[in-house]
Amino acid sequence: MSKLVIVGTVAFDAIETPFGKTDKILGGAATFIGLAASQFNVDAAIVSVVGGDFPQEYLDLLSDKNIDISGVEIVKEGKTFFWSGKYHNDMNTRDTLATELNVLADFNPVVPVGYKNAEVVMLGNLHPLVQMGVLEQMNKKPKMVILDTMNFWMDCALEELKAVIKKVDVITINDEEARQLTGEYSLVVAARKIHEMGPKYVVIKKGEHGALLFHEDNVFFAPALPLEEVFDPTGAGDTFAGGFAGFLAKTEDYSFENMKNAVIYGSTLASFCVEKFGTERMKKLNEKEVYQRLDQFKQLTQFEIVLENIL
Amino acid sequence: MSKLVIVGTVAFDAIETPFGKTDKILGGAATFIGLAASQFNVDAAIVSVVGGDFPQEYLDLLSDKNIDISGVEIVKEGKTFFWSGKYHNDMNTRDTLATELNVLADFNPVVPVGYKNAEVVMLGNLHPLVQMGVLEQMNKKPKMVILDTMNFWMDCALEELKAVIKKVDVITINDEEARQLTGEYSLVVAARKIHEMGPKYVVIKKGEHGALLFHEDNVFFAPALPLEEVFDPTGAGDTFAGGFAGFLAKTEDYSFENMKNAVIYGSTLASFCVEKFGTERMKKLNEKEVYQRLDQFKQLTQFEIVLENIL
Repeated sequence: MSKLVIVGTVAFDAIETPFGKTDKILGGAATFIGLAASQFNVDAAIVSVVGGDFPQEYLDLLSDKNIDISGVEIVKEGKTFFWSGKYHNDMNTRDTLATELNVLADFNPVVPVGYKNAEVVMLGNLHPLVQMGVLEQMNKKPKMVILDTMNFWMDCALEELKAVIKKVDVITINDEEARQLTGEYSLVVAARKIHEMGPKYVVIKKGEHGALLFHEDNVFFAPALPLEEVFDPTGAGDTFAGGFAGFLAKTEDYSFENMKNAVIYGSTLASFCVEKFGTERMKKLNEKEVYQRLDQFKQLTQFEIVLENIL
Repeated sequence: MSKLVIVGTVAFDAIETPFGKTDKILGGAATFIGLAASQFNVDAAIVSVVGGDFPQEYLDLLSDKNIDISGVEIVKEGKTFFWSGKYHNDMNTRDTLATELNVLADFNPVVPVGYKNAEVVMLGNLHPLVQMGVLEQMNKKPKMVILDTMNFWMDCALEELKAVIKKVDVITINDEEARQLTGEYSLVVAARKIHEMGPKYVVIKKGEHGALLFHEDNVFFAPALPLEEVFDPTGAGDTFAGGFAGFLAKTEDYSFENMKNAVIYGSTLASFCVEKFGTERMKKLNEKEVYQRLDQFKQLTQFEIVLENIL
């Protein structure tokens, strides 16, 4: 089993959906990534920062999942990063109501000594300079570096983003971001242009329309599980990335064939995430539920056409 | 091999896309359905109507594919149905520029005597009273009746549409139409409500986002093949339906498992349709190309997770 380093926000979220609203609850990219990866019992560490206002019980929640949090700096006099958003009725689009960087503004990530040799590094959505800072602390080249990002960094730190993209093996990005990054409408063409920027593997997340994995001329697609209702999409993309990274760290098989499985695990875990507010569903998820849903994914996608004399 | 009756328009289309525009070319739901179904060498007949302005070469094209056109009425003094549309840059939405019903306004479908006992009936998009008229001419209950429709009939002939929906086994409908028909945003819930209206099988077409097949509590999903560019989406939905119906008529296996394969064949054929204007690609399609693309679909969707002790 490989070690996994996760960098990203550990934060407060306040969420409003057509189904209800929350006060400040546990959120953040690294939180969702960590909870998803912890399903695989990998040796994972989160590198992040919180303020003195961050409840000990939230940190305990991560520790209880066997996630190393020695790399989560606590700035006693500071306030934790806060995001607030409101989803529209279609649950595919949202308005950001508030973004308070707080302690994130001066964050200098420090990778714990015991994790500087991790084989898998998951760079969650953060300023590309912070992502680069984590990569530079690794004392050997990781087997697999996965980067998630968002349009915000394309708008305000494009050169820094391109520099870190150049150094990663896998990028996970949503469809609109892939189009913005490349100026191409076709996702097939966009993926090819992103390949040329560095990553050998490109994952394009399409929300309720699933995810595409590109590698050279190969492409694999995993649908999102059709759900009766999506309760809260917050964290679904991070949960996907955490499942993807956790599965690779667990299996230590970085072939395209196994990466297909990683995409399926990521989609499976994301399908749970959206069932409740915030981390509520993920923190109580058990093995049996995951296996049942994996089986649903098989039913959903697998078929048996024999390429014989049908035509 | 079963007989297949296809009812739908045989028409002129004029199409404008970001890639170019056409004069009046061969189009119509029954045309696309017939061309797709003809890939399976089934014994198919089209029931439709054209005007005296319809070129013999278009009729010959259908005959040459072994499609029986004795049920295509030619109204010598009339003009053929004409549709004109312009696609937006995203190729997912379009404006209708012209719809001239012409001979379609007084169309009374007549099923050829030799096809009144067909096992499979494909009711292409037309007035629901015409669809019902075809069903009433069958002299035994077909094994499988498939209905395609569109929002236009929900707006202006909802009761007649519901009456025919009640009598079919499979409905193919796009996502927005499924939402309009049921008032439900969730496609899972919409499919359940449509089941209650009659059809045991519900296929929801999501264009570039693939297609869902629902049956009782089972659901199957086929993606659209990711393409570098979609040249002209006209007829893709009909081509899907024609592939679906043709495959079932060919295999005579109406189980859910085999219907999954029918969905995959439908998606495969539709992926060719959009590569060129109108019927241009479909009329030249050969067996080898279809098999190669089916193999691409396998690569795209099939994975091999062993549900063992990963977690």
